[in-house]
Amino acid sequence: MSDQVILLSFWPSPIGMRAKIALAEKGIEYEYKEENFPYDKSPLLLKMNPVNKQIPVLIHNGKPVCESLVIIHYIDEVWKHKSPLLPRDPDQRAHAMFWADYVDKKIFTPGKKVWLSSGEEQEAAKNELMGCFKLLEGELGDKAYFGDDTFGIVDVLLVPFYSWFYMFEKCGNMSIEAECPKLVAWGKRCMEKESVSKSLPDQHKVYDFLMEIKSKFLAK
Amino acid sequence: MSDQVILLSFWPSPIGMRAKIALAEKGIEYEYKEENFPYDKSPLLLKMNPVNKQIPVLIHNGKPVCESLVIIHYIDEVWKHKSPLLPRDPDQRAHAMFWADYVDKKIFTPGKKVWLSSGEEQEAAKNELMGCFKLLEGELGDKAYFGDDTFGIVDVLLVPFYSWFYMFEKCGNMSIEAECPKLVAWGKRCMEKESVSKSLPDQHKVYDFLMEIKSKFLAK
Repeated sequence: MSDQVILLSFWPSPIGMRAKIALAEKGIEYEYKEENFPYDKSPLLLKMNPVNKQIPVLIHNGKPVCESLVIIHYIDEVWKHKSPLLPRDPDQRAHAMFWADYVDKKIFTPGKKVWLSSGEEQEAAKNELMGCFKLLEGELGDKAYFGDDTFGIVDVLLVPFYSWFYMFEKCGNMSIEAECPKLVAWGKRCMEKESVSKSLPDQHKVYDFLMEIKSKFLAK
Repeated sequence: MSDQVILLSFWPSPIGMRAKIALAEKGIEYEYKEENFPYDKSPLLLKMNPVNKQIPVLIHNGKPVCESLVIIHYIDEVWKHKSPLLPRDPDQRAHAMFWADYVDKKIFTPGKKVWLSSGEEQEAAKNELMGCFKLLEGELGDKAYFGDDTFGIVDVLLVPFYSWFYMFEKCGNMSIEAECPKLVAWGKRCMEKESVSKSLPDQHKVYDFLMEIKSKFLAK
């Protein structure tokens, strides 16, 4: 009997895109179920992730795996046959996990503020976000990917934000490419991979959707 | 040549205590270097953790490993010979990692507010913190440890907060034992393990120190 794999996600969410990329890298077939965030959450989502009630949720043969970072580890361990996402060597693994943790904790919050806030709060968020990007640009250096020659966990976690770059630049009146040319070149390089390009939505479509949400948010 | 292991930490920090417990569980000898938080940070800390500038930092044969969750994974992988902290089975491993992530992200922030804030902000933080503890009480159930019969990663990450329970109860005028008796019994059970009791400071000493910091914080 083949594995039954279901992914609950929400198309503009960079956190949700991570699981799609990891599954695509491994060549896993799965059923995709779109959640209607932020309006409501499906009974299946609430049943499968009762603690955090967030996407993405991977359901493998009926058992849920929640939280994007945990999902990536799980996918890498269960489907070992191709495209390892984490190094086996403990030193290199700890290095990758440190940056994975950094991307997981530091990008989304200032990114959301660049999107939804204004004035001083937005200025501070822009500086914070650009500071993170510059640090990541330094860590990337002249490597092809964060995992050196290999596309790995840090790439999987970070590249979904590339589909939000246009929104960051428009909302924040900033140029990521001017300050972080290597990071933008890396994003373009990742997009040449089918696992990434077929998992990431068009950044203009993301922008339009996020502006629609923002106008409803501001109208409240 | 034997391994050189150094731990940079700060005695009242629950985040720092995690690394001490994990090293003690594995029976690893190491050199402990106390950081003088929150007053200043040593040149060694700034050199070894230039991104986050936080404790704990594990330095193994000259190479730094930063962030407590990454450190626990590293210790578990490098010193496999005894006391596994993470299950090998991917399902059980994902389950443990989910709760490890939960403890890592959800406890410290409301806990800090119970300590340092007052009025409505403190009330909200108390409710949030107690909500987390109740959820953890439910996850623990009638098991001896979060890792079932085995003391594991979730126990390592959470039990340091047991040394802050007295402060939470005094500052928040709340009884954790009344609402979460199983969690408090679990804390006492963990304290019977030498790896925990020798890594955790006395809770009254922690309380006195945190009150000293709070008075300086409020005087500003």
